[in-house]
Amino acid sequence: MITLYDYLDSGNGYKVRLLLAQLGTPYRYIELDILTGESRTPQFLARNPNGRIPLLELADGRCLPESDAILWYLAEGTRFVPSERFERAQVLQWMFFEQYSHEPCVATPRFIMRHLPADSPRRTDLPQLLVRGREALGVMEKHLDRREFFVGERYGIADIALYAYTHVAADGGHDLAPYPKLRAWLQRVAAQPQHVLLLERPSGR
Amino acid sequence: MITLYDYLDSGNGYKVRLLLAQLGTPYRYIELDILTGESRTPQFLARNPNGRIPLLELADGRCLPESDAILWYLAEGTRFVPSERFERAQVLQWMFFEQYSHEPCVATPRFIMRHLPADSPRRTDLPQLLVRGREALGVMEKHLDRREFFVGERYGIADIALYAYTHVAADGGHDLAPYPKLRAWLQRVAAQPQHVLLLERPSGR
Repeated sequence: MITLYDYLDSGNGYKVRLLLAQLGTPYRYIELDILTGESRTPQFLARNPNGRIPLLELADGRCLPESDAILWYLAEGTRFVPSERFERAQVLQWMFFEQYSHEPCVATPRFIMRHLPADSPRRTDLPQLLVRGREALGVMEKHLDRREFFVGERYGIADIALYAYTHVAADGGHDLAPYPKLRAWLQRVAAQPQHVLLLERPSGR
Repeated sequence: MITLYDYLDSGNGYKVRLLLAQLGTPYRYIELDILTGESRTPQFLARNPNGRIPLLELADGRCLPESDAILWYLAEGTRFVPSERFERAQVLQWMFFEQYSHEPCVATPRFIMRHLPADSPRRTDLPQLLVRGREALGVMEKHLDRREFFVGERYGIADIALYAYTHVAADGGHDLAPYPKLRAWLQRVAAQPQHVLLLERPSGR
């Protein structure tokens, strides 16, 4: 059986939990408290030298970090990744967009506001992060202007990757009111069969 | 023929140029001056709403942004991407590592030092970026301890993606002396057939 090392409030981990639920794949769930350094212990660093969750461990012990690489690994050959060459590249395009242009300014404000003390110096980063986050949300809004899903008009891992932190962007101070297409897409994603919630604890452990 | 919209000093663009040279694929090269806003014009935003280079345009006009998605698009089915499922995911793992943990703190210091004025307020970010960049370089050094290349003991697009900004990390103030395995790997990458240099202008235009 595969094992997912994760932190329940992590949107990056949630991506993997959501896909696993929709694939119907059983897995063992091991939660690490990233706030107290449990992803930086020697034992965990032996599994992922970059010290980050989520991490997928296969039954034979091989380990795969990076949420979007895990999504690809689990989804390749299923209905969640297209088979056509250009569409496959577009899935990756949106997942790289998510990690480079979106996550650092949509997820990070949420982390700062939920998990760092009120006097944390990192709070001074918030205004600039929110400006950049609005740019990323605007790119998504524009793309969704005449589309139901991000790639090939079919729900897949590009949607999962982008949904994870977008649907809780308000936790970091983002206002989604100016993005009606984005809000409609969030509803379409949440309406997919076997959807699970971010803070829904897997039964694995 | 395909067209690459690019900026010559961009390591992200260089990744694509290096792969295209090694694939022997002819292409049209259009350079945009990102410093004067040429990647934010209405014409370019119509091609990439995120306003970034590199951008690959196919002969039929379809456009693909995100350097590492472009690498995957061009390399899938060639010797530069493995065919085995877990190795394919590992290639993506290292490309996501590159965009999330490496590029923002190895490429960005270089950009600040080469292209921003001496009194730019962004220079105050440099010390923190260099600390985080050293963590990323350390993860690479550890991975290369008993490996010749990043995935499957064969040169491929994970190496290309990581080489692009690592080999010029010193431009941003990083000292590679503490990373002997990394330096040996840089030499192996540079010794591959049909290697081209970062500032080597393609003959396409």
